[in-house]
Amino acid sequence: MKVGDRVQVQSKDGVHEGIVLPSPENQKNLLMLKLVSGYNIGIKLDKSVKIKVLGARTKLEKFPTVQQKENKSLPNISLIATGGTIGSRVDYKTGAVQTLMKPEEFIANVPELAGIVNLKKISRPFAVWSENMSHVEWQKIAVEVAKELNAGAEGVIVTHGTDTLHYTAAALSFMLKNLGKPVALVGGQRSSDRGSFDGALNLICAANYCKSEIAEVSLIMHGEDADTYCLAMRGTKVRKLHTSRRDAFRPVNELPFAKIWKDKFELVNANYKRRTSNEERVTADVKFEPRVALVKFFPGQSPEIIDYYLSKKYRGLVIEASGLGHVPVDTKDKKLGWLPKIKKAIDSGILVCFAPQTLYGGLNQFVYAPARQLHDAGVLYLGDMLPETALVKLGWVLAHSKKLVVAKQLMLANLVGELNPRIPEEAFLY
Amino acid sequence: MKVGDRVQVQSKDGVHEGIVLPSPENQKNLLMLKLVSGYNIGIKLDKSVKIKVLGARTKLEKFPTVQQKENKSLPNISLIATGGTIGSRVDYKTGAVQTLMKPEEFIANVPELAGIVNLKKISRPFAVWSENMSHVEWQKIAVEVAKELNAGAEGVIVTHGTDTLHYTAAALSFMLKNLGKPVALVGGQRSSDRGSFDGALNLICAANYCKSEIAEVSLIMHGEDADTYCLAMRGTKVRKLHTSRRDAFRPVNELPFAKIWKDKFELVNANYKRRTSNEERVTADVKFEPRVALVKFFPGQSPEIIDYYLSKKYRGLVIEASGLGHVPVDTKDKKLGWLPKIKKAIDSGILVCFAPQTLYGGLNQFVYAPARQLHDAGVLYLGDMLPETALVKLGWVLAHSKKLVVAKQLMLANLVGELNPRIPEEAFLY
Repeated sequence: MKVGDRVQVQSKDGVHEGIVLPSPENQKNLLMLKLVSGYNIGIKLDKSVKIKVLGARTKLEKFPTVQQKENKSLPNISLIATGGTIGSRVDYKTGAVQTLMKPEEFIANVPELAGIVNLKKISRPFAVWSENMSHVEWQKIAVEVAKELNAGAEGVIVTHGTDTLHYTAAALSFMLKNLGKPVALVGGQRSSDRGSFDGALNLICAANYCKSEIAEVSLIMHGEDADTYCLAMRGTKVRKLHTSRRDAFRPVNELPFAKIWKDKFELVNANYKRRTSNEERVTADVKFEPRVALVKFFPGQSPEIIDYYLSKKYRGLVIEASGLGHVPVDTKDKKLGWLPKIKKAIDSGILVCFAPQTLYGGLNQFVYAPARQLHDAGVLYLGDMLPETALVKLGWVLAHSKKLVVAKQLMLANLVGELNPRIPEEAFLY
Repeated sequence: MKVGDRVQVQSKDGVHEGIVLPSPENQKNLLMLKLVSGYNIGIKLDKSVKIKVLGARTKLEKFPTVQQKENKSLPNISLIATGGTIGSRVDYKTGAVQTLMKPEEFIANVPELAGIVNLKKISRPFAVWSENMSHVEWQKIAVEVAKELNAGAEGVIVTHGTDTLHYTAAALSFMLKNLGKPVALVGGQRSSDRGSFDGALNLICAANYCKSEIAEVSLIMHGEDADTYCLAMRGTKVRKLHTSRRDAFRPVNELPFAKIWKDKFELVNANYKRRTSNEERVTADVKFEPRVALVKFFPGQSPEIIDYYLSKKYRGLVIEASGLGHVPVDTKDKKLGWLPKIKKAIDSGILVCFAPQTLYGGLNQFVYAPARQLHDAGVLYLGDMLPETALVKLGWVLAHSKKLVVAKQLMLANLVGELNPRIPEEAFLY
């Protein structure tokens, strides 16, 4: 029995007929079937399962390819494909998801790219669903990006699943030291076999971004649900705010760098680092402390959660605090007060940071007395830093500072635009 | 030494001169001083502290009061004050925060109310910072609201701190059974001694809401940062999305019921329950299971967090999943895979629910194979329910269903508008 075969399968769940799809990674005992209805099911292969091969293998369609002629007037860029919808194609006959591997496949999929850049190289360091990514993958991507830029690429596009794309964007922002060229992260909210495929426009706009002067890690995704233009958003100030819309990613507490159309580029926010000469080298400074956690506070929550992370030897916590930066302090029920636990954690050398649960706006520890008490106890108030960015930064900072006092300074410092002391009015719900 | 005295205090931190403020609740050993600079500091009272009284007590300003003349043509409403900025006044001389206790004080503070409703009664079941509230306070408020409505009030206004106002709004939505009249929750983002005080407009619009036909628990807060109009937002579909703006509360995945001006009422969304006759009685159905928790998933997170809640005998978890409803399933590093832990929790009788980390949009377990596996394992996919609402609902549902199968049905059912299968386009970033 091979991928593409038409089979009849008898299991505890009944009898099913369909075409064999590739099994999910790391789960080879799961038989995936594309049923006649078009729906996919997974059947666990145990002794009770009986399989009858009904028909010969349906041949997988070959990707169309288009060889790009090098155009000396266009800049050379590289693409790093990491998995996710954007770098995939669905085979209509089998329903199998295949991954694009070569420049000529990408060009065939999005032919407009050839008019914008020379897509010199595609590397695929791994293929992972974005929810499965951790700092290990962030590190590999950063190393790969640095390699390509130092080898002469004028810019790099990274394709990536969208679930945790904003976390990776923040990670690359901190890890790519001395960055002097554009790095564009793109994903797709709809797969390439659907009419509503958004990845094409995202890739085209990412290529345009790679030609710009903005030497920042940006996320390039739809600016509105229609297929019109994209936004270039700072990697540390962007968040996924919708499960399915094409314009799910929004800048938070900052305006986007630019609006980008297929053939137009409109600068919105000039607060960016300029492209430097090709001789400057970028470093992938990827050390990361994984013993960091994000804790979203909720009403009535027991502060014992801090003891848990203490017992697991965590070194840093980002607490998504309420309002301007609060957790319960002076409570009638002493069991619900957070201050003693927080003090204990800080005394044990854990970095305790607060970031805003509201996402938009900044914290302020000086308005209410309980916040002042928390601040005085050593809690780091991270201003308007997104909780997701704060978590990534904390892991990076803790790996880069032997002394706690240095780590604290770094957390409060504005390293790559993660803090914005002057949030413009229009940035709210942009 | 009394509140209002001018004192000189010598402590480890140096010598400070200022006026004694009331100590924070439950922290009587903290001396709060208003310094000449206007800044407040807290000094821990231990043996080393020396205090010299310099001047006589500065008398607290008395609230102005205005006695409302009953107007038979206006409806009678009640107000329940629970703490927070909205029901407070700052005394200019001492900086002390005082709480408004009587209808005539509220009327003096917001005189427009007298032209809209007869504010018959103000009750203050407790005074608590909103971050300190838990289900115990939600229950007390629900009981108080039901009592007032059943005693003949045409509507009830609840004033509340803003940090967790949306959690309380969700709790009242589930707890007030057979509600036939409007219930308006309001807060203030700026205190009443500031020119930018927003509480007045919020209270006026809440009074207008109480005259409407919308028999729902709504949150009434600014529609834009300017002091122009308010939105009436369903208690289960609203979230605080900014730390400080006056229009911090936004409807999520649904349009607001109405835009409300001082003297205008514009219906936006007619999907609401109509006011019923005055004979119908509302019940405060307040049972709540506090052993529920909200866990926000982040990349690289160890699924051992589930073991922790299992060991603490929790009965339900809401996991803020990524994208359309994902946590890592088929991971190379087996330690990062969530499925075994989730299965173990479900086998132990814990209700495991997924809600969208993106806030906007709905989950969909049928797009990607890992989500199907999680769904098949028994994870409840809560559609477009806000994580905060899901947590509150889970605690309420678990206390209201002896059988797990009933609890599951209730979680997936649309009880009070917490699910919206038809989200309008304009609801995104409204």
